Amino acid sequence: MSKPFEGVYAALTTPFAGDEIATDKLRGNIEKYNQTNLSGYLVLGSTGESVSLTDGESLRLVEAVVAAARPGKKILVGTARESTKLTIAFTNRAAEFGMAAALVRPPCYFKTRMTREALRAHYLALAEAAKVPILVYNIPQNTGVPLDTQLVIELAAHPNIIGLKESSGSMGFLGDVRPYVPRSFHYFLGSGHILYPGLEMGADGAILAVANAAPELCAEIFRLFQAGNKDDARRLQLDLVPLNKMLVEVYGIAGLKHALDLRGYYGGPARLPLLPIEDKAKRDIAALLKILGY
Amino acid sequence: MSKPFEGVYAALTTPFAGDEIATDKLRGNIEKYNQTNLSGYLVLGSTGESVSLTDGESLRLVEAVVAAARPGKKILVGTARESTKLTIAFTNRAAEFGMAAALVRPPCYFKTRMTREALRAHYLALAEAAKVPILVYNIPQNTGVPLDTQLVIELAAHPNIIGLKESSGSMGFLGDVRPYVPRSFHYFLGSGHILYPGLEMGADGAILAVANAAPELCAEIFRLFQAGNKDDARRLQLDLVPLNKMLVEVYGIAGLKHALDLRGYYGGPARLPLLPIEDKAKRDIAALLKILGY
Amino acid sequence: MSKPFEGVYAALTTPFAGDEIATDKLRGNIEKYNQTNLSGYLVLGSTGESVSLTDGESLRLVEAVVAAARPGKKILVGTARESTKLTIAFTNRAAEFGMAAALVRPPCYFKTRMTREALRAHYLALAEAAKVPILVYNIPQNTGVPLDTQLVIELAAHPNIIGLKESSGSMGFLGDVRPYVPRSFHYFLGSGHILYPGLEMGADGAILAVANAAPELCAEIFRLFQAGNKDDARRLQLDLVPLNKMLVEVYGIAGLKHALDLRGYYGGPARLPLLPIEDKAKRDIAALLKILGY
Amino acid sequence: MSKPFEGVYAALTTPFAGDEIATDKLRGNIEKYNQTNLSGYLVLGSTGESVSLTDGESLRLVEAVVAAARPGKKILVGTARESTKLTIAFTNRAAEFGMAAALVRPPCYFKTRMTREALRAHYLALAEAAKVPILVYNIPQNTGVPLDTQLVIELAAHPNIIGLKESSGSMGFLGDVRPYVPRSFHYFLGSGHILYPGLEMGADGAILAVANAAPELCAEIFRLFQAGNKDDARRLQLDLVPLNKMLVEVYGIAGLKHALDLRGYYGGPARLPLLPIEDKAKRDIAALLKILGY
Repeated sequence: MSKPFEGVYAALTTPFAGDEIATDKLRGNIEKYNQTNLSGYLVLGSTGESVSLTDGESLRLVEAVVAAARPGKKILVGTARESTKLTIAFTNRAAEFGMAAALVRPPCYFKTRMTREALRAHYLALAEAAKVPILVYNIPQNTGVPLDTQLVIELAAHPNIIGLKESSGSMGFLGDVRPYVPRSFHYFLGSGHILYPGLEMGADGAILAVANAAPELCAEIFRLFQAGNKDDARRLQLDLVPLNKMLVEVYGIAGLKHALDLRGYYGGPARLPLLPIEDKAKRDIAALLKILGY
Repeated sequence: MSKPFEGVYAALTTPFAGDEIATDKLRGNIEKYNQTNLSGYLVLGSTGESVSLTDGESLRLVEAVVAAARPGKKILVGTARESTKLTIAFTNRAAEFGMAAALVRPPCYFKTRMTREALRAHYLALAEAAKVPILVYNIPQNTGVPLDTQLVIELAAHPNIIGLKESSGSMGFLGDVRPYVPRSFHYFLGSGHILYPGLEMGADGAILAVANAAPELCAEIFRLFQAGNKDDARRLQLDLVPLNKMLVEVYGIAGLKHALDLRGYYGGPARLPLLPIEDKAKRDIAALLKILGY
Repeated sequence: MSKPFEGVYAALTTPFAGDEIATDKLRGNIEKYNQTNLSGYLVLGSTGESVSLTDGESLRLVEAVVAAARPGKKILVGTARESTKLTIAFTNRAAEFGMAAALVRPPCYFKTRMTREALRAHYLALAEAAKVPILVYNIPQNTGVPLDTQLVIELAAHPNIIGLKESSGSMGFLGDVRPYVPRSFHYFLGSGHILYPGLEMGADGAILAVANAAPELCAEIFRLFQAGNKDDARRLQLDLVPLNKMLVEVYGIAGLKHALDLRGYYGGPARLPLLPIEDKAKRDIAALLKILGY
Repeated sequence: MSKPFEGVYAALTTPFAGDEIATDKLRGNIEKYNQTNLSGYLVLGSTGESVSLTDGESLRLVEAVVAAARPGKKILVGTARESTKLTIAFTNRAAEFGMAAALVRPPCYFKTRMTREALRAHYLALAEAAKVPILVYNIPQNTGVPLDTQLVIELAAHPNIIGLKESSGSMGFLGDVRPYVPRSFHYFLGSGHILYPGLEMGADGAILAVANAAPELCAEIFRLFQAGNKDDARRLQLDLVPLNKMLVEVYGIAGLKHALDLRGYYGGPARLPLLPIEDKAKRDIAALLKILGY
């Protein structure tokens, strides 16, 4: 029995031309992604450099993606702000553009105050006030605020909290959450490293940076898995692992954007403080893409 | 030979009435602080819950403090954003209100990318473009991005980077930086724990959360130190340590605001996700204030 | 094509009677484990409280396990000490008892000095001098010294370094190492959380604390996996995850030993500073064992 | 009113000749240190590479230092082991040689189990059973197990726990402990970075690695402080800071030993896994010693 949001999503990069956002380039990428089996798109995720954008830029990006996405592709939007009030406000402003669900990382500046109680209060207030369903987002490598599995299980009981994106890449987190949340709760993997093994152990899909550069590969792993063809899913996963490592872990967003340029999408520059990658990185990326047959 | 910015500053709290900022309450606090020997005020610091505010709210607070401060009190403003472009833009918008210098923590969401090179490029671009002098801000407990002393030393060579606020509370940081930066570079302590010892080892002043609740005490330690009265400075420091610990480290901004209420300033609530403090905390704070003679 | 060490090993607990090691109880446990499909036993691992033992006690335990193990069961021994010299010496003393390979965590007291260079020199000197094959051991949660994948890949080139036990539980580590080491290099999982998914992605076996309490379950997952019965392996893995979490992660060695007592093995007390578990923990463990049908 | 253990101690290095301990070289160093105002010596501290030694080597070092020390010089010995039982046993074996007190870091391999309760039970059992007074030792950079100030305060109530060595270098720790422990409790600084400021804020002395290379400087800072000559103490502290940083923090034990060789003591090699320092380090150290007039 399929679930409404299942499948693989691209955590979209944000194209810049010079120092301005380039919504035309974004639309161009989306038109290509529309031809794939991706289930949809995440706008304003970590990979989208959302923290580096103004609210105005952010909303224009949401508008552009909603307009460009083929019907049936689901739109997720990262809407976190540091205060509960601002998170609710921005979520509901963005909701007017027609997203399917909001993905919300925890507030993270006041790290030592982000107790389970504070995080629970934040997410529940948001879930009550938001006009769209909420996906909780665990990405401690960026936030420095790890969500604990018990909190996720508690939050999953709220009818407007419909899922989780888990980007620490831990199989343990999956094992500690999946049996204790409703079957309808969506568990999205946030790390390409464990796409196939995570699906095998109960994840419903994934929201992946690497899917910008390799949407067919990611979507095909999901399709093969669903078809019960575990051996082929496993084989493709062995290609995805080094690609994910190089583009997401080693070289980061600037590296991923370079791979997009090489693969015929628009990558372009990252916004400072993210530095451009160096020539060695470009050679590494080109070499790996060639090895993988791109 | 005195330096232009030396002395103790209060890292101001932001008063809220209900869920809105209360600039009238802020002015009321400032009028009281104007009677003390504080050298000035930091608006929009970490203690000011700056991450929880809109740009519009932020600028209204700057405007209010500039208007309320007695002539001679220097105004510092926290102006960091996550991207270099937005940091420059907000710094220069806020500069129009007449601040003395901007205090800028590093970008911190893309933690693993915030190499020395990325941080150097960020701060140098800011220093070039900013219409006000820049103070670098090290607060790894909140950012998760520690600045290294070598980077600070390099940045200190730029004519528009005039100082540092160091909030990790490390005496080692001071010892590793002070001898290697120009005498004119301002080293501000960001932790009340080490006000007197830090001054003794070469700091030029401090920008302190605890100075909201105990401005006279903090300013007096500085005055006694400057007057060469180390014994009395040391004695007052022994009072400051437990106060700083309880208000800043143990109970945080909500606790500090409660102390403000008890001491006749306006504290009020913190904005969520910061939770209100519990009754035990209130009793602890009241008891300590009493012990210290407030 | 099978590999000489493949399969699942129990990382044995060390039985104590009062404050003394109880080799008779250990032999009793081994005789039961001999009836299972475990490939062998690790003596003096982290789970064996090896750091809490004298050298004399340690060697008596090795002797007892070697004597009690059924022919064909392979014996691994944890032989790390903090200096290279002492590690070599203890490894070769223990080797006289007839172990198959030594498992060696990195030195970890001088954390900041344990650079890749220092660790490489340590392991290569050991590999040269040791009279038995060496397994490298990554367990940063205990050592505070994470091995990086590049170091492991370099070490795998040495003919006397025949494998790795990886206890951080990271699938990413596996993906970053497996393709770049010789096919003959043994990659052992050290976390029950990922037994089946780890095998699926290329691990050769596992050395598990939880296998003390559930040897049949762990060995059966391996057998099913090898037989190509992924669906059943996956189903049993779903039982193993909560068991591993409770016995290894939540309650630790004292909890694991209590489970041994409940299951008819000898668990007994842990040696201080490990505290006994409380009554609630005992109830939790009993309840989970019952749910799982033990 | 002076306290029995107050003053500055050298945390002795352990001389090796080739791969063996060289007690004759150690005696030679001690004879020189006997001419200084050091209060005594710590044998088998972190700086003494105690974790890299056998029990037999360790006891021979204690014996040698006790024999060589001038009457009046107090001998402290690091006696920690990972289990409570072994720590008690080794403490009492070493006590037979005539030490003044034992310095005991917490067990640190089972990091996640070293709760306040476990550490309290460990230290109290030790304090009860030990035939010498106990100094608690906080050195989280090596152990990965930070002691919290509340635990230290609780332990200070035991009559056989007579003090603390605090090597994290935090002034905050001092401020949070000093007012809440008996006046007779000895608070020793473990970081040369804060020798003078720490004394000023209530420490009773220090046990320092850097005192191997600069015993006169360290002892003189203490003497000046006690004489009320804060200005000169402060001035010497400004020399100590870069020396401590280079020898202890940047280049570590191998660097410190090189400085000993340059200064006419016996330094010699460190035991692996500590690597020798490189030529650049040797030049840096020689240059700094020259600048400081050695």
